[in-house]
Amino acid sequence: MESSKTLVMDELKSYFPDLPNGPLDNYRKKATFNWRVMKLVYDNMTTIKLKHDMWKFMENNPLFQHSDTSLPLDEERRIAVKRMYAIFNENFLPSELLIEEPKLFQAWSEALFMFNSSLAVKMSLTFRMFSNTIQGSGGPHMYDFIEASEKGKIGGCFALTEVSHGSNAKGMRTTATYCPKTKQFVIHSADFEAAKFWVGSLGQCATHAIVYAILISKGKNHGLHAFVVPIRDPKTLKPFPGVTVGDIGEKIGLNGVDNGFVMFNNYHIPKEYALDKLGGVDDNGDYKTPFRDPSKRFGASLGILSGGRVNITSISTNYLQKAIVIAIRYSAVRKQFGPQGAAEETPVLEYQQQQVRLLPYLATTFAFRIFCTWFGDLHIRIMIDSLLGRAGPAARGVELHALSASAKPLCAWAARDAIQACREAAGGHGYLRAAGLGDLRNDNDANCTYEGENSLLLQQSSNWLLTMWPKRREIKDEDTPLGSLKFLENADEYLKTICPWTTVDELIDPCNLIQMYKWLTAYVLKMTYEKVSKLKSEGKDNLQAKDESQSYNAISLSVIYGENYILNHFYKTAKAFEDAACREILLQMVSLYGAFLLEKHMATLYIGGYLRAQAGAALREAVLRASAALRPHAPALADTLAPPDFCLNSVLGMADGQVYKHIQNKVMTSPGSMTRPEWWRDVVHWRARLPSKL
Amino acid sequence: MESSKTLVMDELKSYFPDLPNGPLDNYRKKATFNWRVMKLVYDNMTTIKLKHDMWKFMENNPLFQHSDTSLPLDEERRIAVKRMYAIFNENFLPSELLIEEPKLFQAWSEALFMFNSSLAVKMSLTFRMFSNTIQGSGGPHMYDFIEASEKGKIGGCFALTEVSHGSNAKGMRTTATYCPKTKQFVIHSADFEAAKFWVGSLGQCATHAIVYAILISKGKNHGLHAFVVPIRDPKTLKPFPGVTVGDIGEKIGLNGVDNGFVMFNNYHIPKEYALDKLGGVDDNGDYKTPFRDPSKRFGASLGILSGGRVNITSISTNYLQKAIVIAIRYSAVRKQFGPQGAAEETPVLEYQQQQVRLLPYLATTFAFRIFCTWFGDLHIRIMIDSLLGRAGPAARGVELHALSASAKPLCAWAARDAIQACREAAGGHGYLRAAGLGDLRNDNDANCTYEGENSLLLQQSSNWLLTMWPKRREIKDEDTPLGSLKFLENADEYLKTICPWTTVDELIDPCNLIQMYKWLTAYVLKMTYEKVSKLKSEGKDNLQAKDESQSYNAISLSVIYGENYILNHFYKTAKAFEDAACREILLQMVSLYGAFLLEKHMATLYIGGYLRAQAGAALREAVLRASAALRPHAPALADTLAPPDFCLNSVLGMADGQVYKHIQNKVMTSPGSMTRPEWWRDVVHWRARLPSKL
Repeated sequence: MESSKTLVMDELKSYFPDLPNGPLDNYRKKATFNWRVMKLVYDNMTTIKLKHDMWKFMENNPLFQHSDTSLPLDEERRIAVKRMYAIFNENFLPSELLIEEPKLFQAWSEALFMFNSSLAVKMSLTFRMFSNTIQGSGGPHMYDFIEASEKGKIGGCFALTEVSHGSNAKGMRTTATYCPKTKQFVIHSADFEAAKFWVGSLGQCATHAIVYAILISKGKNHGLHAFVVPIRDPKTLKPFPGVTVGDIGEKIGLNGVDNGFVMFNNYHIPKEYALDKLGGVDDNGDYKTPFRDPSKRFGASLGILSGGRVNITSISTNYLQKAIVIAIRYSAVRKQFGPQGAAEETPVLEYQQQQVRLLPYLATTFAFRIFCTWFGDLHIRIMIDSLLGRAGPAARGVELHALSASAKPLCAWAARDAIQACREAAGGHGYLRAAGLGDLRNDNDANCTYEGENSLLLQQSSNWLLTMWPKRREIKDEDTPLGSLKFLENADEYLKTICPWTTVDELIDPCNLIQMYKWLTAYVLKMTYEKVSKLKSEGKDNLQAKDESQSYNAISLSVIYGENYILNHFYKTAKAFEDAACREILLQMVSLYGAFLLEKHMATLYIGGYLRAQAGAALREAVLRASAALRPHAPALADTLAPPDFCLNSVLGMADGQVYKHIQNKVMTSPGSMTRPEWWRDVVHWRARLPSKL
Repeated sequence: MESSKTLVMDELKSYFPDLPNGPLDNYRKKATFNWRVMKLVYDNMTTIKLKHDMWKFMENNPLFQHSDTSLPLDEERRIAVKRMYAIFNENFLPSELLIEEPKLFQAWSEALFMFNSSLAVKMSLTFRMFSNTIQGSGGPHMYDFIEASEKGKIGGCFALTEVSHGSNAKGMRTTATYCPKTKQFVIHSADFEAAKFWVGSLGQCATHAIVYAILISKGKNHGLHAFVVPIRDPKTLKPFPGVTVGDIGEKIGLNGVDNGFVMFNNYHIPKEYALDKLGGVDDNGDYKTPFRDPSKRFGASLGILSGGRVNITSISTNYLQKAIVIAIRYSAVRKQFGPQGAAEETPVLEYQQQQVRLLPYLATTFAFRIFCTWFGDLHIRIMIDSLLGRAGPAARGVELHALSASAKPLCAWAARDAIQACREAAGGHGYLRAAGLGDLRNDNDANCTYEGENSLLLQQSSNWLLTMWPKRREIKDEDTPLGSLKFLENADEYLKTICPWTTVDELIDPCNLIQMYKWLTAYVLKMTYEKVSKLKSEGKDNLQAKDESQSYNAISLSVIYGENYILNHFYKTAKAFEDAACREILLQMVSLYGAFLLEKHMATLYIGGYLRAQAGAALREAVLRASAALRPHAPALADTLAPPDFCLNSVLGMADGQVYKHIQNKVMTSPGSMTRPEWWRDVVHWRARLPSKL
């Protein structure tokens, strides 16, 4: 036993050498756990090795050296492409390996995102999403496309969103009209509003697109179907006649990704390019589908998007992880004010407000990282099962869908708030581009609206939960294979209780916090259900009743449902972790995460009569106390989470803690920073250089 | 009477012609008030005329045409400078005019910020802040600097912050040692950590800096003092020997501003360059000051920063104003989903969640705009009084200081949250750089940390309030000339009450909301005071007791104190507005703003026992109902707030509502958007172009 522990430690040390000494030493000494061992709560040696290999490859490759200044758009695009092919060429994650250890997908993705988000997004769009869609809904005759993609001969993209329709996929207007004479589909965009838009990798690079269009045959509209559509000649990268394709230009972030638009002018493609496994026309143009209910076919054909949401959950966590490492290391080094007459000022991490705005997000990062590792693994397993024709538990797909429709928005929002908290907690220097926090915010911002604007996406989860409420007494384990409906057990009895805990000690206990969350989730579901019912009884139709039950109700419901799941998952994982020293700190983080979440929902706990009198004040004290307790361990926990310095690439967050040296180095060696601008005459002789009046 | 109204209408129409017809017409017809008349709630004909003249000048000047794509850093810097001198040369706001109508300063600043924030910041730093500081703390012999600045012969900047000290100004380490023999000061920076840093306009342009340094004479440290320090030769823009000056590089936003750093190596300046009105040495090096308590001198010498905070309050409001106009116009045009079988989809503004996330911020914008106009006016009047040696009410300066230390953070944060809400409410297209929301967020982000990181700055306000609590029964009108302490009247009796209003009708009434805010402000002050006292009684020293009372207490206190003031000011102004149709809508917005704020503090209202049982649910319904009521008027209110299209510069927010045409125009005409990238061979022949392995 001991010797296997030693082996593990040796292996960990080989991947993670000792950190450089410096201003962070004081805090590092205070930690009661081993920062390397803590990694094993979400990683294993296989995932650690993959990330290590990918990072070593990048670190030693000139193409992966960060630029000193931000690049012009075109150069950012070019370098993302070059890096993409360099990574692609290494084939770090062959399918065989992935099937053996599905967790490797998240590790592969994390390794890329930690270095550069545009590179990671380009990789996914060009290769994975294109092939996965064909594999999922195309026949074997389409596998040539997959092979060409796997050899890098063609580049894919995924074209669903249109200029004037995104969330309402059923409102899309691109058409694919079948012509039996030529056995071709005619793809057409009626106008610019029907152009496919926002398509990642379509702006400058993609040669083929998965295009969603309304299938029309014999004058009949069969709804949205997917087609593989050649866009550009793979030999010249010039668009084919009938295709108007272009780049949508700069975005708030992710500017290495060439998002594009495309319009089709009666553009013909062979019938074989239809992804018609789930429904399509025969040679005569008669429609065939294995589904009786066409609305189910549509849902299934969009099933691929569930994977997108699972991934975004993890992408948000990657950004959050980088931000929290930067802010915590900087807060441990930055000193400001202190007791009168003290020889040194005090690290800002010692101040209450700094702790309260950062440490709950440190706990959140662990909660999310643990959840995402499991969630990603689950999703890949489901995909493998489906490809191999193995059936999983019947209810699993639906529950995964609901959980991903909750987890994606909730993680994107938590990352948004956390990155902002980190940015502000870093004070003025946090506003330097070289601090890295601005880019993280701008990149994560996309997560709040793509693959479903957050507020809208949450409806998919609340709608499902609302159907469950009347059935709550009949729900069995097989109806909730992931356990996300466990909170409904004895819900009615539980909702009659009031919170029996009123002291800080009680309100910091993970077990009690878990119970409180159970009440909260059930209560918000009940309230939302009753509000919808009431509106309907007043004569509102379903659409209107649902719409008027969103704010404070359905939206909160979906978020709380996801939080409840993540909190329970965190608690379970923490309790089960073998290393006692790590386990203790993990349980402290469960407390902090739980109390922090409940504090934000405190008004609802009072409205429901669950909290009474001063109990809320004690809950706030619990957040303060749990934050203060975590403080000495925070920098070591940041070490656990930190990617290598060259990935983090922040003057405030390097492992050596030499913040001011990195700032000095950055500003003094930036090109032109110390020289007179070329346009100095525009200052000195400004009057002579005024533009002439009109 | 009627004829004067007609005259006003004619004049308003001459400045604001009819808006173009288009998709916004439907909503515009629904508004029950005149969008031009509504402007007079914060503007007058003089401020309207100044803004109009400045915008006309810009619109007709080629230098002020926006670029199609974002510019390289150096070009962004150059154009900000050229625009700055072009505006400077027009002298739109001569001092005589400002003294006559102090409101014009905010109008002038607004006109610049609505066009481009970097231009506006450069103007303020180069000219106003430099001259104002000299005027405030330099003797008449320094007025040569002011004259040179007024002629544009020199460019100023303001150097307080150092690399390792910002908030803790007393910890700064730049020294100014007096040498009686040469009658010079020797300015010195011990190391890079003592370098002045973040100094706006110092990076490439400034010739002179106001430098704060520790005055040392005869071996004695006299604390921080200000000096005018020549940095670069005004004829060549090259730094003087002994000065190491450079640019700090890219920031998250405001990149047209050249923030810089400077280190001094035993750099000699004449004694006369000391800004010593409030304290300094005589020729022999003996220290003289009109203050007996040196800590008071230090405070007074930093008095100029109060003006900075007043301005940032307004700057945040400018950003907020642009963002809300963009989001509301787009939400009125963007259609998605709708009743089954309906001919058209529904504008997203009709959905509850869209209303609830935008309309409270529309009300906030009016509340802030009205407050800032008054606040800016007040501040300029106080400055004029001080320059002319006229004494105002004794307590006014202190109260202004407390109010600005609350209003700056609260407005910066509200703008932060509102811009983010607007960005997300705009869905996918909100992520386009051409939507304009990303730049607003990145620019406003600076407001959260500069001139005092928000959380720290709030302490200046809470510290003052805490001293007021024990004196609450003795406070007279003259102690609170601005009325910000009115909430303390009968506080003890009031705190014994519980909220008598429990229905939505009651909780939407401005009068009741005002009363509730009074309770809330007094309660949080009392709680914070008691927490500090308790910690002290447990043996904590003052610093520690204060530190441990920040989160949920002192920080909330300062924010609520400012919100209370702004809400009352909004209500008073709305009630007094002459036009009845506008007044009705203004009062609706007061309701919404009040209910929205109280909803966010609901947990505290319950903890304090003021709200009971289901009253909180009714308060949430009040927010929903007030939002829904404002919805038909929202686009016309956006018209009131909107700057001209060329300033707004957003594809989603133009006055004609032709969102998709503007997007099409933008993406199809951007340079290179439709052509193959020059590096297309890196895609097609990627294998041949892989970097060689190491």
